[in-house]
Amino acid sequence: MAVSSKNIYTPSVVSFIPLLYVSWADGLLSPSEVKIIKRRISSLENLTPDEREILLKWSDPKEWPDEATFKHWMELMKDARADLDDESIDSVVELGMHMASRAQVGDQDLLQQLRESLSLLSSELHIPGLAKFRALGVRVEEVRSKWSFSPGSLQKVLDAENQEVIERLKLLLTDPSFQQVPLRIKEEYRLQVLEWVKILARQGYGALGFPKAHGGKGDILQYAAVFETLSLFDLSLAVKFGVQFGLFGGSIQNLGSKKHHDLYLPPTGSADLLGCFAMTETGHGSNVRDLETLATYDHTTQTIDIHSPTEQAGKEYIGNALHASMASVFAQLMVNGECKGVHAILVPIRDAEGKVLPGIRIEDNGYKMGLNGVDNGKLWFDHVKVPRENLLNRFGNIDSEGIYESPIASPGKRFFTMLGTLVAGRICVAKGALGAAKVALTISIKYGLKRRQFGPDDNQPERLILDYPSHQRRLMPRLAKAYAAHFALNNLIRVYAGQKKEESRMVETMAAGLKSYVTWFANDAIQEGREACGGKGYLWENRFADLKADADIFATFEGDNTVLLQLVAKGLLTDFKEEFNAGGFMASIRYLASQVGDSFTSINPIYKRKTDADHLSDPAFHLHAFRFRERKLLYALGSRMRTMFKKRITPYDVFIRTQNHMIALAKAYVDRLVLEQFQEAISGTMDDDLVEPLSKLYTLFALSTFEVNKDWYLEQDYVEGVKTKAIRRSVDRLCMETRLDAEPLVDAFGIPDGILSAPIAIRK
Amino acid sequence: MAVSSKNIYTPSVVSFIPLLYVSWADGLLSPSEVKIIKRRISSLENLTPDEREILLKWSDPKEWPDEATFKHWMELMKDARADLDDESIDSVVELGMHMASRAQVGDQDLLQQLRESLSLLSSELHIPGLAKFRALGVRVEEVRSKWSFSPGSLQKVLDAENQEVIERLKLLLTDPSFQQVPLRIKEEYRLQVLEWVKILARQGYGALGFPKAHGGKGDILQYAAVFETLSLFDLSLAVKFGVQFGLFGGSIQNLGSKKHHDLYLPPTGSADLLGCFAMTETGHGSNVRDLETLATYDHTTQTIDIHSPTEQAGKEYIGNALHASMASVFAQLMVNGECKGVHAILVPIRDAEGKVLPGIRIEDNGYKMGLNGVDNGKLWFDHVKVPRENLLNRFGNIDSEGIYESPIASPGKRFFTMLGTLVAGRICVAKGALGAAKVALTISIKYGLKRRQFGPDDNQPERLILDYPSHQRRLMPRLAKAYAAHFALNNLIRVYAGQKKEESRMVETMAAGLKSYVTWFANDAIQEGREACGGKGYLWENRFADLKADADIFATFEGDNTVLLQLVAKGLLTDFKEEFNAGGFMASIRYLASQVGDSFTSINPIYKRKTDADHLSDPAFHLHAFRFRERKLLYALGSRMRTMFKKRITPYDVFIRTQNHMIALAKAYVDRLVLEQFQEAISGTMDDDLVEPLSKLYTLFALSTFEVNKDWYLEQDYVEGVKTKAIRRSVDRLCMETRLDAEPLVDAFGIPDGILSAPIAIRK
Repeated sequence: MAVSSKNIYTPSVVSFIPLLYVSWADGLLSPSEVKIIKRRISSLENLTPDEREILLKWSDPKEWPDEATFKHWMELMKDARADLDDESIDSVVELGMHMASRAQVGDQDLLQQLRESLSLLSSELHIPGLAKFRALGVRVEEVRSKWSFSPGSLQKVLDAENQEVIERLKLLLTDPSFQQVPLRIKEEYRLQVLEWVKILARQGYGALGFPKAHGGKGDILQYAAVFETLSLFDLSLAVKFGVQFGLFGGSIQNLGSKKHHDLYLPPTGSADLLGCFAMTETGHGSNVRDLETLATYDHTTQTIDIHSPTEQAGKEYIGNALHASMASVFAQLMVNGECKGVHAILVPIRDAEGKVLPGIRIEDNGYKMGLNGVDNGKLWFDHVKVPRENLLNRFGNIDSEGIYESPIASPGKRFFTMLGTLVAGRICVAKGALGAAKVALTISIKYGLKRRQFGPDDNQPERLILDYPSHQRRLMPRLAKAYAAHFALNNLIRVYAGQKKEESRMVETMAAGLKSYVTWFANDAIQEGREACGGKGYLWENRFADLKADADIFATFEGDNTVLLQLVAKGLLTDFKEEFNAGGFMASIRYLASQVGDSFTSINPIYKRKTDADHLSDPAFHLHAFRFRERKLLYALGSRMRTMFKKRITPYDVFIRTQNHMIALAKAYVDRLVLEQFQEAISGTMDDDLVEPLSKLYTLFALSTFEVNKDWYLEQDYVEGVKTKAIRRSVDRLCMETRLDAEPLVDAFGIPDGILSAPIAIRK
Repeated sequence: MAVSSKNIYTPSVVSFIPLLYVSWADGLLSPSEVKIIKRRISSLENLTPDEREILLKWSDPKEWPDEATFKHWMELMKDARADLDDESIDSVVELGMHMASRAQVGDQDLLQQLRESLSLLSSELHIPGLAKFRALGVRVEEVRSKWSFSPGSLQKVLDAENQEVIERLKLLLTDPSFQQVPLRIKEEYRLQVLEWVKILARQGYGALGFPKAHGGKGDILQYAAVFETLSLFDLSLAVKFGVQFGLFGGSIQNLGSKKHHDLYLPPTGSADLLGCFAMTETGHGSNVRDLETLATYDHTTQTIDIHSPTEQAGKEYIGNALHASMASVFAQLMVNGECKGVHAILVPIRDAEGKVLPGIRIEDNGYKMGLNGVDNGKLWFDHVKVPRENLLNRFGNIDSEGIYESPIASPGKRFFTMLGTLVAGRICVAKGALGAAKVALTISIKYGLKRRQFGPDDNQPERLILDYPSHQRRLMPRLAKAYAAHFALNNLIRVYAGQKKEESRMVETMAAGLKSYVTWFANDAIQEGREACGGKGYLWENRFADLKADADIFATFEGDNTVLLQLVAKGLLTDFKEEFNAGGFMASIRYLASQVGDSFTSINPIYKRKTDADHLSDPAFHLHAFRFRERKLLYALGSRMRTMFKKRITPYDVFIRTQNHMIALAKAYVDRLVLEQFQEAISGTMDDDLVEPLSKLYTLFALSTFEVNKDWYLEQDYVEGVKTKAIRRSVDRLCMETRLDAEPLVDAFGIPDGILSAPIAIRK
């Protein structure tokens, strides 16, 4: 509904505004509560059809009032309250009635009926007094004046186009039904997470990425923002959410055709159909191409026979395995005795009562390091038959004659196209990891600004631990890296959402690289944050326990990081080869050699010993250095491979011998990518107040990343010791300078206390 | 009992040998089982007093048969079995009776009585068939012939003087009563760990470090070996064991006097008196000197009043807080209104029924990241009065006149002497961390030797993942580091055990440095090991979950690593200053400058570009490089400090400004220390077969440590890029070479399958 409608609110509609505002602001609208509101509104006899319609709409979780409407409500309420003594009204009923009466309604019956309905609703929904409501009003308006910039403005830059959905979800997650208590027994924890997933589904979050025609919004940006926001709260929830909507739903969306979409997407989005994504096997994880599960088509019955030929061929670590009633099973498709490669087939695994279907064996994967709220399990199939139609057939179909057909002729290409469905998952995993890192950094930095230890002498207070240089060195470069990762990921998602067909490999390379980068970073930041909080960081209540245990697996699932980095390097080599295809691979090597030689080595004499502050903080210097590293490694790798191929070494052996080199190249590529995106983000920042603090943070990121690789730069004679020493001093100084902005910088992550939940990070 | 007694075993005694052998070998003798054996032996009428005595002695956990006796038993049994068909005897009863009958006893009554007793005992003790017994026999004899060296021989080098106690404890820990099941609910887990601690105490392990006069063996080496062995099994158990015997017991032993030893050490060693070590407060962790708890002496009642003046002054993270009946409370001792600094006082906290005593408040610290089998809690004291005698008064006493007296005049020195009691704790924490790292490396390397993924083409088997260079890079340098840490720690313990008074600071510096080094290493090795095992590493059953969560806190407790490194640097600066005291601090700086200048810089022109294999693997080169780094950093730090002092900057500010430099120096010191000890260990190795594999491992350690710091060496112009590149290639090659020894190298850690327990690491 548009803001322009504000003048036409009738007294009846107006009287509901405070109640609806508080309900929404608290994220209180669980399905049963929505039912209560709808029943009450429907039973109000004196409402006009229009009034009833607008009130019902405002109560629908899928049609939540937008930010502008929400703000308009607040203004109306503020106006109304201006007439009154602040303290005289302490309920949404009284305020609503006051607002209605300001409209000078004569109909006392109507007013009486409204009052009764509001009172009943207020008590049925357990709406608290206005004290809480007042606090919410303040929160929206608040601008902290003590900092050089407003964390709220920076938060808008970070949240960008997703601000509204993020804010709304945060409110929901601070609702009492989302509470952080240790659920140590996996069965209990899993049921809680399942319940949460269902609430989210009913509020429309699950289907966000699905097409509009199937109940979604077709908005992968919002979906990814939701995933990150969930990860601030509980990673088990984020992962189970991702399995249900992103992996299972995503496999139907991306690998299926219209009939699958029509049949399965709506119930998947509403979580009425729970599904799992059965790709990994005990025997084959990283090497998906060699999966052993068989899907043999029998044309006489027009069915596909799903079978696990060995124990090792069982599907493993499958999320949702203990709750789902259907699985997307990845298997070698056999048609007329010929293997067509890995395809996905929808296989029902439980009946309506939740009983496992015949021929299927499911085992619990048991306790895990973390994510014990996710029901991972193993699945085996003993000649389970499903109709031909269950093949997700976008990239490979069996027609009614029993003939296999595919729009992609090459089996290899077909396989990689299908695996392309994993890209969105990788992006989300990276977003989730980033969310976890932000929580860890927020907690440890806020603690560092409260905790004092040691002091100059007995008469002075002890010093804040964040004022110790060693402590700043632990946390500030990592805070800078969190920002860098944020901008790089946001860019990746936008590129992903708008990609053209020919960009798919580039996107895949970016996603693989950033997934590795961010998930390793998250583990590192969580660990450093934990140690920076000492013993307090070890207590469950302060979040690090779950963050660390849960985020750990991010380095492995959706593609093992080390394997992904090799994928990145292969992508770079291929791109590079194709780019210069006219001249062939060797021509491109020669070109690169000349480039490295000309544009870099000749500049070095000037650069090598340059240590003035302007130079060290110059983005052009950073970009030069980061690009040099990437290109030099690419060139050297190309040359080494060329020599080996000349010696007739097999491609597999070449790969083995250059493996560590490939990984080094991939890391250099991601560093450069992230640097560029941080630079872009600052160029695009409209708010002048933000440019300076962001630039400082950027420079800290650039130089501390350089520092991590300074051995390589020194080895290559790109810089001399005098320069790396100057960079170390710059990093030390930047740590001190950014420490002054530490609080607004973590506040801009916008993690409400209710989600942060760690007692050591919350000011009383 | 000596081996020389072997010829005088009577038939009755001989008949018990198989049963006792198997009982001991299985570590089966829980207290209730010992009771059963003793009762049965005592009830045997036909035994002579001598026979009864020797059999009772052999059944006493505190007097276990030594290695020689044990071997002699095995020989006797082998002799006896040589008469027989291997398969014909499948019980300890039959074998025992056969051995007795070989002695040609005519007394059929005796034989009948023996048979009855043995049968009863065998069933009461649930002694299994001889299949298991035969396996044990083989285990002792086995020498693997497929490797160039025997893991058993290397294990002897590692276990050294503690081999016997380690082997015995390992057998106990593979007993069914020590079983690894996930105990998710802290109360259940804590009770299990408490039960384990009591079993260990009754077998004499807890008191090992106490003086012989108080039921111990006065053997800190064995105690530390026990701690490491326990950590292979369960870190909660190791930590609770350490709190009870090392910290609580240790505070009585080291800070108390004879009356305390007489009264409290025996029940502490037997775990009849459970105690806790109440040092850390919520407000003060690292800064122990400023603890707030007050211990005010009142001479009229001759009591000490223990009081927590604020909520923040409460003791926190105190292990054993939920089970203990006594606490060693560290508090500011006030005598006649004067503060005498931090002292420890024994305070009863629970009565005989386990009820918390008046004036004491205890709260559970709740769930933690790990170590949930340890009951950490918070304690507050509200004017709790204890007798004057409860002051642990070795370093500070209140005499019967109410006058405070101390053998150490300076309060500062007194404080540091008392804190010296923490040194043993730090050594044990490092041992525990090393144990955890060994488990992680053993599991991940064994998995790397089983798991295959990807391969050259369809017709060849997939490749073992440990054959990938990137995988070797992850695990082999860490395996080398585990060996390095092992030798360095063993040396530290020996130095600690034999230390003279004037060596105490050196020992403290070593302990602080190695504690930081090894605990950080353990966290790193566990993480890398987990990732190297992919999804399998994430499952609880494969051990990484608990290893990671439990060992994490080792970086913080018993001294935060970053704080400890600063202690190391201070120690180095002080030693250095004292060493050259005649000339004063400045003279020593000048001396060091000349040393660095003369002996290093002048050599560099030769060294900088030297890349031949002999040179790179030369221990003299490594030692030179490691010493150079330490001395150069020490010199530079000294110079910087000198300049600042000249500018009249306060000592506290000098400390703040040089904090990161101090940490760098401390790390260089530990690297050098560890390198030297690895070199020493190889020089001392008697077994020629071991020298080569150990030397390779050593070189990998030396060069990969150099590599980690190569940025510094390049920055200092100690080497050129051509040399660091050659070192990288050497490390790659050494990774491949040591990979060939990977299996015997982890087997030499001697972790039995029953303790390792991870299904992915156990060959079926």
